Amino acid sequence: MKAIFPRTGKAQIIGITGAPGAGKSSLVDKLAYFYRDAGEKIGIVCVDPSSPFSGGAILGDRIRMATLGLDKNVFIRSMATRGNLGGLSRATVDAVSILDAAGYGKVIIETVGVGQDEVEIVKTADVSVVVLVPGMGDDIQAIKAGIMEIGDVFVINKADREGVLRTQKELEALLALAHRPDMWNPPIVRTIATESKGIDDLAKAIANYGEFLVNSGEVGLNRRKSIARWRLTELLQERLLSDFLSKDGTRDRMEEFAGEIAEKKSDPYTAIETLLEF
Amino acid sequence: MKAIFPRTGKAQIIGITGAPGAGKSSLVDKLAYFYRDAGEKIGIVCVDPSSPFSGGAILGDRIRMATLGLDKNVFIRSMATRGNLGGLSRATVDAVSILDAAGYGKVIIETVGVGQDEVEIVKTADVSVVVLVPGMGDDIQAIKAGIMEIGDVFVINKADREGVLRTQKELEALLALAHRPDMWNPPIVRTIATESKGIDDLAKAIANYGEFLVNSGEVGLNRRKSIARWRLTELLQERLLSDFLSKDGTRDRMEEFAGEIAEKKSDPYTAIETLLEF
Repeated sequence: MKAIFPRTGKAQIIGITGAPGAGKSSLVDKLAYFYRDAGEKIGIVCVDPSSPFSGGAILGDRIRMATLGLDKNVFIRSMATRGNLGGLSRATVDAVSILDAAGYGKVIIETVGVGQDEVEIVKTADVSVVVLVPGMGDDIQAIKAGIMEIGDVFVINKADREGVLRTQKELEALLALAHRPDMWNPPIVRTIATESKGIDDLAKAIANYGEFLVNSGEVGLNRRKSIARWRLTELLQERLLSDFLSKDGTRDRMEEFAGEIAEKKSDPYTAIETLLEF
Repeated sequence: MKAIFPRTGKAQIIGITGAPGAGKSSLVDKLAYFYRDAGEKIGIVCVDPSSPFSGGAILGDRIRMATLGLDKNVFIRSMATRGNLGGLSRATVDAVSILDAAGYGKVIIETVGVGQDEVEIVKTADVSVVVLVPGMGDDIQAIKAGIMEIGDVFVINKADREGVLRTQKELEALLALAHRPDMWNPPIVRTIATESKGIDDLAKAIANYGEFLVNSGEVGLNRRKSIARWRLTELLQERLLSDFLSKDGTRDRMEEFAGEIAEKKSDPYTAIETLLEF
């Protein structure tokens, strides 16, 4: 990764998130075809909430790789979440850096969930796209707090469905309330991904934000700095934990404590203090 | 927390998760009223994906506290996510322990998102309830990998909506595929929370799982052990990071490195090595 880092920074990294069922995968596929037809090389990194037991990825992505993935200018990488020890966010960002260094001009990060982890991952992109569908009602309420403020571009997908106007109005109202420290007014793009409608508008909105970032140097630099800060913290946490656990006998002692806590013979706080003193 | 831990273990901890818009809040409210009418004291811990900028909680919860929260046998605590340094999961589990120790017989953890963090939090409950709505289609696909296997009880809420049978069939098919190491067959309960329908069935399904856990001692112990393991890792990670950052000048050096990385004068991996060597 050290060798790769100096070669990064040329790609435009596009983060795409939104509620389950919003049609993100179709949208990403169509956007990838759009860029490919414009002569670009495209990398797609999908972040899946995988099964805590089987660790398997979602079947849909395998089907997808069989079509889009056969295109020599498109590279798809599926990242599965890997249980408690974290590292997924960092691993995703590393995968993006590798594609960037390898000359992929557009790298799309697609997340499946709408949890905190997904928000963190999308925040590391150059431009964040939030996908909604008409008639979400409660959903907008539920997700607004988490992702409204990270969206640089909003998409109302499945725009042939009933309620598109209402969703647009609600979204506009929420955006009017949101405080944007960077003075960018996030556009709202309507798409019907399954019919390839509105994809060019989306690409244009993404390009506009890219230009905005370049022209307002300060905003871009601050964004890169906060991404760097986040990466440092993630990496540090991971290294500190793995260094600690690699000490002789630490894992065994953790396991013993877990047993004692389960039987209520000890508590996690006392256990940690004992572990740290050792 | 050390003093509190020995007093915990009496409450039944119920984790409730599901897609945004599934009506989780109404369901939790009605379940709380049900338990209250049965003479129980109920604690509710809501985990919100809060705004990364404002840090505010969702308005809906404030409205809610003004009604349900006035009941002296119901205690509601809203937990907001707090940015990158993590700790939310641990803070949530601590809040649950405090309510448990304080004599609340039922403690409900309600999560808003469906990301990895939310899955982790719900896994720390004694029983995990996954809420779906009819006609999710893609959603079941999207969320199945993450939460299907953690559900001990499934709810199809808004069961007066079209497509309830299809959702039930799809869910049954998915559950038939899922490997349950504990040999429990998760029941599917239909509810209409807004009309208080099916809440007694849900309460019964939750109670059944509680009995199952008691009767199959091994399963319960293994569950408590894996929760303990998770808590230890979370706490350890938090302590290691905060101990490290509390060293003189470390934060300043992190900040300098973030600037250098943003300007591509350094990379995160080299920065971490330098920081750790210091």
